[in-house]
Amino acid sequence: MKRILILNGPNLNLLGERETSFYGNLRLEEINEMIKIEAEKYGLEVDFFQSNYEGALVEAIQKAKGKYDVIIINPAAYTHTSIAIRDAILAVNIPTIEVHLSNIYKREPFRHHSYISDVAIGQICGFGVQSYLLAIKAAAAISQQK
Amino acid sequence: MKRILILNGPNLNLLGERETSFYGNLRLEEINEMIKIEAEKYGLEVDFFQSNYEGALVEAIQKAKGKYDVIIINPAAYTHTSIAIRDAILAVNIPTIEVHLSNIYKREPFRHHSYISDVAIGQICGFGVQSYLLAIKAAAAISQQK
Amino acid sequence: MKRILILNGPNLNLLGERETSFYGNLRLEEINEMIKIEAEKYGLEVDFFQSNYEGALVEAIQKAKGKYDVIIINPAAYTHTSIAIRDAILAVNIPTIEVHLSNIYKREPFRHHSYISDVAIGQICGFGVQSYLLAIKAAAAISQQK
Amino acid sequence: MKRILILNGPNLNLLGERETSFYGNLRLEEINEMIKIEAEKYGLEVDFFQSNYEGALVEAIQKAKGKYDVIIINPAAYTHTSIAIRDAILAVNIPTIEVHLSNIYKREPFRHHSYISDVAIGQICGFGVQSYLLAIKAAAAISQQK
Amino acid sequence: MKRILILNGPNLNLLGERETSFYGNLRLEEINEMIKIEAEKYGLEVDFFQSNYEGALVEAIQKAKGKYDVIIINPAAYTHTSIAIRDAILAVNIPTIEVHLSNIYKREPFRHHSYISDVAIGQICGFGVQSYLLAIKAAAAISQQK
Amino acid sequence: MKRILILNGPNLNLLGERETSFYGNLRLEEINEMIKIEAEKYGLEVDFFQSNYEGALVEAIQKAKGKYDVIIINPAAYTHTSIAIRDAILAVNIPTIEVHLSNIYKREPFRHHSYISDVAIGQICGFGVQSYLLAIKAAAAISQQK
Amino acid sequence: MKRILILNGPNLNLLGERETSFYGNLRLEEINEMIKIEAEKYGLEVDFFQSNYEGALVEAIQKAKGKYDVIIINPAAYTHTSIAIRDAILAVNIPTIEVHLSNIYKREPFRHHSYISDVAIGQICGFGVQSYLLAIKAAAAISQQK
Amino acid sequence: MKRILILNGPNLNLLGERETSFYGNLRLEEINEMIKIEAEKYGLEVDFFQSNYEGALVEAIQKAKGKYDVIIINPAAYTHTSIAIRDAILAVNIPTIEVHLSNIYKREPFRHHSYISDVAIGQICGFGVQSYLLAIKAAAAISQQK
Amino acid sequence: MKRILILNGPNLNLLGERETSFYGNLRLEEINEMIKIEAEKYGLEVDFFQSNYEGALVEAIQKAKGKYDVIIINPAAYTHTSIAIRDAILAVNIPTIEVHLSNIYKREPFRHHSYISDVAIGQICGFGVQSYLLAIKAAAAISQQK
Amino acid sequence: MKRILILNGPNLNLLGERETSFYGNLRLEEINEMIKIEAEKYGLEVDFFQSNYEGALVEAIQKAKGKYDVIIINPAAYTHTSIAIRDAILAVNIPTIEVHLSNIYKREPFRHHSYISDVAIGQICGFGVQSYLLAIKAAAAISQQK
Amino acid sequence: MKRILILNGPNLNLLGERETSFYGNLRLEEINEMIKIEAEKYGLEVDFFQSNYEGALVEAIQKAKGKYDVIIINPAAYTHTSIAIRDAILAVNIPTIEVHLSNIYKREPFRHHSYISDVAIGQICGFGVQSYLLAIKAAAAISQQK
Amino acid sequence: MKRILILNGPNLNLLGERETSFYGNLRLEEINEMIKIEAEKYGLEVDFFQSNYEGALVEAIQKAKGKYDVIIINPAAYTHTSIAIRDAILAVNIPTIEVHLSNIYKREPFRHHSYISDVAIGQICGFGVQSYLLAIKAAAAISQQK
Repeated sequence: MKRILILNGPNLNLLGERETSFYGNLRLEEINEMIKIEAEKYGLEVDFFQSNYEGALVEAIQKAKGKYDVIIINPAAYTHTSIAIRDAILAVNIPTIEVHLSNIYKREPFRHHSYISDVAIGQICGFGVQSYLLAIKAAAAISQQK
Repeated sequence: MKRILILNGPNLNLLGERETSFYGNLRLEEINEMIKIEAEKYGLEVDFFQSNYEGALVEAIQKAKGKYDVIIINPAAYTHTSIAIRDAILAVNIPTIEVHLSNIYKREPFRHHSYISDVAIGQICGFGVQSYLLAIKAAAAISQQK
Repeated sequence: MKRILILNGPNLNLLGERETSFYGNLRLEEINEMIKIEAEKYGLEVDFFQSNYEGALVEAIQKAKGKYDVIIINPAAYTHTSIAIRDAILAVNIPTIEVHLSNIYKREPFRHHSYISDVAIGQICGFGVQSYLLAIKAAAAISQQK
Repeated sequence: MKRILILNGPNLNLLGERETSFYGNLRLEEINEMIKIEAEKYGLEVDFFQSNYEGALVEAIQKAKGKYDVIIINPAAYTHTSIAIRDAILAVNIPTIEVHLSNIYKREPFRHHSYISDVAIGQICGFGVQSYLLAIKAAAAISQQK
Repeated sequence: MKRILILNGPNLNLLGERETSFYGNLRLEEINEMIKIEAEKYGLEVDFFQSNYEGALVEAIQKAKGKYDVIIINPAAYTHTSIAIRDAILAVNIPTIEVHLSNIYKREPFRHHSYISDVAIGQICGFGVQSYLLAIKAAAAISQQK
Repeated sequence: MKRILILNGPNLNLLGERETSFYGNLRLEEINEMIKIEAEKYGLEVDFFQSNYEGALVEAIQKAKGKYDVIIINPAAYTHTSIAIRDAILAVNIPTIEVHLSNIYKREPFRHHSYISDVAIGQICGFGVQSYLLAIKAAAAISQQK
Repeated sequence: MKRILILNGPNLNLLGERETSFYGNLRLEEINEMIKIEAEKYGLEVDFFQSNYEGALVEAIQKAKGKYDVIIINPAAYTHTSIAIRDAILAVNIPTIEVHLSNIYKREPFRHHSYISDVAIGQICGFGVQSYLLAIKAAAAISQQK
Repeated sequence: MKRILILNGPNLNLLGERETSFYGNLRLEEINEMIKIEAEKYGLEVDFFQSNYEGALVEAIQKAKGKYDVIIINPAAYTHTSIAIRDAILAVNIPTIEVHLSNIYKREPFRHHSYISDVAIGQICGFGVQSYLLAIKAAAAISQQK
Repeated sequence: MKRILILNGPNLNLLGERETSFYGNLRLEEINEMIKIEAEKYGLEVDFFQSNYEGALVEAIQKAKGKYDVIIINPAAYTHTSIAIRDAILAVNIPTIEVHLSNIYKREPFRHHSYISDVAIGQICGFGVQSYLLAIKAAAAISQQK
Repeated sequence: MKRILILNGPNLNLLGERETSFYGNLRLEEINEMIKIEAEKYGLEVDFFQSNYEGALVEAIQKAKGKYDVIIINPAAYTHTSIAIRDAILAVNIPTIEVHLSNIYKREPFRHHSYISDVAIGQICGFGVQSYLLAIKAAAAISQQK
Repeated sequence: MKRILILNGPNLNLLGERETSFYGNLRLEEINEMIKIEAEKYGLEVDFFQSNYEGALVEAIQKAKGKYDVIIINPAAYTHTSIAIRDAILAVNIPTIEVHLSNIYKREPFRHHSYISDVAIGQICGFGVQSYLLAIKAAAAISQQK
Repeated sequence: MKRILILNGPNLNLLGERETSFYGNLRLEEINEMIKIEAEKYGLEVDFFQSNYEGALVEAIQKAKGKYDVIIINPAAYTHTSIAIRDAILAVNIPTIEVHLSNIYKREPFRHHSYISDVAIGQICGFGVQSYLLAIKAAAAISQQK
């Protein structure tokens, strides 16, 4: 059975409370529940980790080595500022999918550049909670190829 | 029954022959067949149009008005140069999903900017043929919300 | 009797349906009718051509040589991307007036640069349908000087 | 009866003497006379003010409030350097038309950017004295809409 | 008794009439009255000068030498374009506080750069009328240190 | 009674030891004591938090929701690099004042840009310890308006 | 016998009429005749295609596959704007020579960048009609190496 | 007898008091006296004008027409911000020499660009009072050539 | 006896597993052992600290004050993004040597800029493990000078 | 009989030994021999000069005046850094052809700009040794026109 | 008796033959003769050196130490490309005057930046041969101050 | 026995006399003596070459082929301007170490970019004479690996 790690970056623990016009009004646990159900359809096991610390996300990726087949990451604000997360992805060499709830290209110019996208398999953004569910489907396809 | 228009831009008629390391070795008709099957799972009807002419793509979008619920577009080279396609999407105001086979952020810098992404609902790129299939799933969700 | 060619670029065939806050709610034929009436006041004969194809606009300009005294062009999206239209204007060497319905300087930064303005006699933008009518008046003055 | 204020910026008092290849050889008073005649055709009353002082132009705009229906301004060199004039236009909130005798896009790059154009209704440039006459026609249309 | 000069740049004479969402609806005289009262709390004497002329502001700063202990300046539009005001501050070498009613970093990009801030003691912006009152408190502290 | 949270970013725990020409020679606890006394004048209760961890500052802001009326933040080095802190401020939607001891515009160019200033109410910088005391006064005014 | 395809982009059908100081006064058919004679010297068969449509040039390149040994292309205005033509060249993988009549480095800055040159074998520009004849000689050498 | 106009821009009336490390400690009148003596050696008559107003400098240049053979201008801060002064120089078409006391290339980057230098005959900077005296010598040579 | 602190930034705990073509296949502990042996040759005592947290590295530098004579730091990804680490180095004012295993100038452009290099004594990069051993030799020289 | 000077810049004396994937494996003398033979076909006399010194190349160009009808230059590294060679070409005013063995547009960005191309007749690059032979043919045509 | 070294950079040996519209039609020896005469008026001894080699100019400056009181240099093309000449001037620490015959600000943008100007005392440009004569006068003043 | 070539660029022959705060007060011969002693410790033979001519340095590198195992180069000013030296290093393909006495990142921005660093094995800068001694140690390690 394939295993998927879902990583969420800073402030995503506030989902459902925060800027709901951008991010929708589901709470992170509710989204995780939906992801779990979707993952089961594809026979995937999922684990979740959220942190507001860049270092904690780096270490979560480091520890994923040998345990997970695919990483799905929404790096939130760290998308645009963290080379450390990029380097962690390069280091563990696990296929990684970048996900965003909002369409980052509709927002401030500094959100248009990602340090993650060119080390990820691909990017899915702008579909709200669906972004995660689409990533699960993509992860299923990727983990089958391995 | 919801209807989806799948638009493909220049040189995508050569899929399967062209730079297969980037784009895979399925031909466009084969991909379209896979999309059709996927669409049926979600109860969606799909039509396909490919053109190497910017003007023809603009007109295909214009004519979509009133006929299609969602547009899925892989604008290929025109992603980075066509404001006319952008304006057509703005004009018809049909929810649009931008799709790329390859991860455009791993390629030449001039492919990192899209004139389409900030007028689309969202962007999916880097998953090969799966990019289209994920877009079908996203289109199903979007067309249900309408 | 002096003859004027009115050229309209991509998506202007949708006028009256499209983004009416920017472009007003008159249809292209209605605008053309108004232009015709205005032209008659100045004793000018006008012909109209709209295309969504860059190549078709290039050829319309090429064929204007020897037939028209002034070209009035609203290149729409091609304003910002088409060197081919610029070159056609340079090639036929007919006095050309650049026209825009909306004030392009109030919009996205990529609409602030025009490949046409420095090969045109002058530019008129931001006055809605009036932009065309002012251009007719300007064309009358220019064609008299010839 | 609608009233129009015509503002001219620095060095325009030298018209007819200065760089005549760019600006033509009519003197400012002669141009003003032509504008007056044109305005009368549209039933408009016009007043004129020229200054070489940025501050004097700012104050002329401030004092226009409640007195004029439309401002036509050729800010000359201040087009490219004066945020104060821009702010005055924003402050009085009178519809303003930006006018240039020469085609500013054919000249030095620093003349391609205007601090005025995106707070004006529209811009007319490149038609010599006709630029003012076209602006009068545009002002007539704008003042009717109010 | 310490003396403070309050300088206001172009268009601030319109306060209370102009773009009230940005600048509030108090008139300049009312603000000056509030400043006076605040200044008295700290035992400071205040004088006021407003001009729409860059040259007049330059000369007001020049004449402040030997008369005032601190200058509080809201250069308004000249913040972003006047090296002459900057040079005057450098020349008289009186401690200067830069003040803005609105938060200039929430506005157009050209308002993000100030020619004054790096020759001033410090900058206070975004607090509406409070910006001036805070500056009075800061001036009190600065003038005590001298 | 209104409550204010004072947040200090990395290396501010070294105040009084570090680069005293820039930052003065008061220690952080001494400054906090001065802030407390000032706050009491305005009937405000203040709490203090300093961290060298971006993540810890993000979480301090998150937890401020419902507890504090105003946040005063000196993000220090994170001013220029942290989108995560910016997002936390946007998420909790508590009025925030940005404060700097030194005048950031007199220092290295990379210190001239702040990710915080356009999501804050306003910015106060350059007045040394006074910057905090002015912010307390500003916070008093802001919390009264609520 | 080796076959060469000569492609000409927009406005080159006007050669001999258009801006003769830049492009000389030979008509396209006359140039083609000279190319034919030159090609025969090297035992090469040549075909010609000119279009003002980007899409038509893309398709001409696509159809060249398996039919031609070398492509000689003067993309004219599309040199600087067409990623679609670049992609077509990459897709068919036929050795391609970029040719310009005028020296593009002596002209407007936007003509200094080519989307074609780094996917072509080489570039020849500035020699007028000779540019094509030199390209024939180069094509002869290249087709011999295959 | 040839006549020379010496123009000085903002804050130069403070010479001798202001930033003496940059500008030396001679007062403007003392410098003017030295210039007069130098001019007499070359049989030149000199007049002096200083203003802190951009508009006043513009008008001084305008009025120089027909009265002066050469203008020597130290535009001070307006060097870097005034297109109006540049335009006045272009308008009157009197040979103009740009002068600076300090070496502007040793100072802040925004002082490295001059709007005047490419419309002047030449530039002399960095020699303190000598800059003016050298300009007198240059003016003598220039006025002899006329 | 002089004491040296060796700091390693994010992902360096993975050395020997991660991208070995860039970083070699020695593990961090093995490298540390080699550094220890080298240090003993120069009579230096060394301590080691690695963290994936920016904040933890900041605090390690803060605590070095008074304990260590030289800091050798390989900030890894934080080289390019951390002003907080830079500020900590400035604050403690201990001579610091910047070290990189790989040649950062052979890699992605965003790795060419370091926030550390201009506050360090010097930089050594590109020599693999030797980079650390050279830094020990440099530290020996520096600590002797103190 | 027309005379052609062939100039080669730095490191081209190493041809055949150096980076053969870029430059081929013919030695400079072998290439010169081929050029000689080609030149004879066109009845041209050729001389050769190679130097690693910018100054020596400048002087070779200076001395060409009155002796040679055309210069063919491969400035190698000096293409991108030498304004002195550019100035020498301008000074002697001999028609000059710029040649490169490799396609400079496929290499590092700093090789995309040439200080020579806009003062040369034209540029030929990317054809290996053929680049020189094509230049001989071009030189024949140019020298006939004289 | 004070001694002055006059250095001339590449291609200045061609003066009088080369681009005479820019540089006048005096030969270098004639200019040197004029300089000598002018120098004698001020009681200065002058030596001359011209080279097309950057290295030779560097060494001429190095050897000037202890022999010359002032250097007058026209670095020609090396003005814009040579940090080595800049470093030589810094190294010998002899007051240096930068001179140009033509007004470099009227020419190509790459001639607007000088690596020499901010290490020179001052710059004189645009006065033709007079530029050197003015520099002699400036050198006389500078050498008197020593 | 391994052989090392030590190359020094322009103005380094003045070491000990020139800007001693940057470069220390040892003369080049003294430094060379220290390098020799250090080299002997590692059983390395060293030769020295200094030139102020770019061309001479290029040729020294060319001639190093087959004679030296490692090159240590301090290109001084040519670091930032010489592509020719870069190309020579690429051509001979000898492992090269870039060395600087001063920390180039603490100096003018134009000294932050090196044309050499990405073709060198690594870079050592900022340690004064130690930079060379560290390079000897690095060269010993590199030459052993061969």
